[in-house]
Amino acid sequence: MKKAIFYHAGCTVCTSAEKDILNLIPENQVEVIHLGTDRSKVKEAQSLGVRSVPALVLSNGNVLHINFGASLADLA
Amino acid sequence: MKKAIFYHAGCTVCTSAEKDILNLIPENQVEVIHLGTDRSKVKEAQSLGVRSVPALVLSNGNVLHINFGASLADLA
Repeated sequence: MKKAIFYHAGCTVCTSAEKDILNLIPENQVEVIHLGTDRSKVKEAQSLGVRSVPALVLSNGNVLHINFGASLADLA
Repeated sequence: MKKAIFYHAGCTVCTSAEKDILNLIPENQVEVIHLGTDRSKVKEAQSLGVRSVPALVLSNGNVLHINFGASLADLA
């Protein structure tokens, strides 16, 4: 199965959600990308439909925006 | 372990998120509550910190608001 991708930007909300999500989802089913340190991935995230972080992009293409840490526009 | 609770209200956003969440989390670790049909649970959800649905309340008490289907105020 294609992995889910958890996008975050290191903010407090993101870090808290990251811990929670990774507790729920088996680690080998999710890839974690830090858009604050890996800015080249911001466009990829936008093209997948991510509008804010933290967000979880599922293997079926659905995007789950979880709480609200930062707008992607602020990271671009 | 205490179960997580997934609160929703039957809206399109909720139903879509429900499928996604239940694909990720083992079924015996999450309880699903439909606030549209079980309105007596709205106050309980509010007291746990749920402000909109769909939302996932984790066993550690953290609330993950996922996307945005409806405000809890509209269900009360």
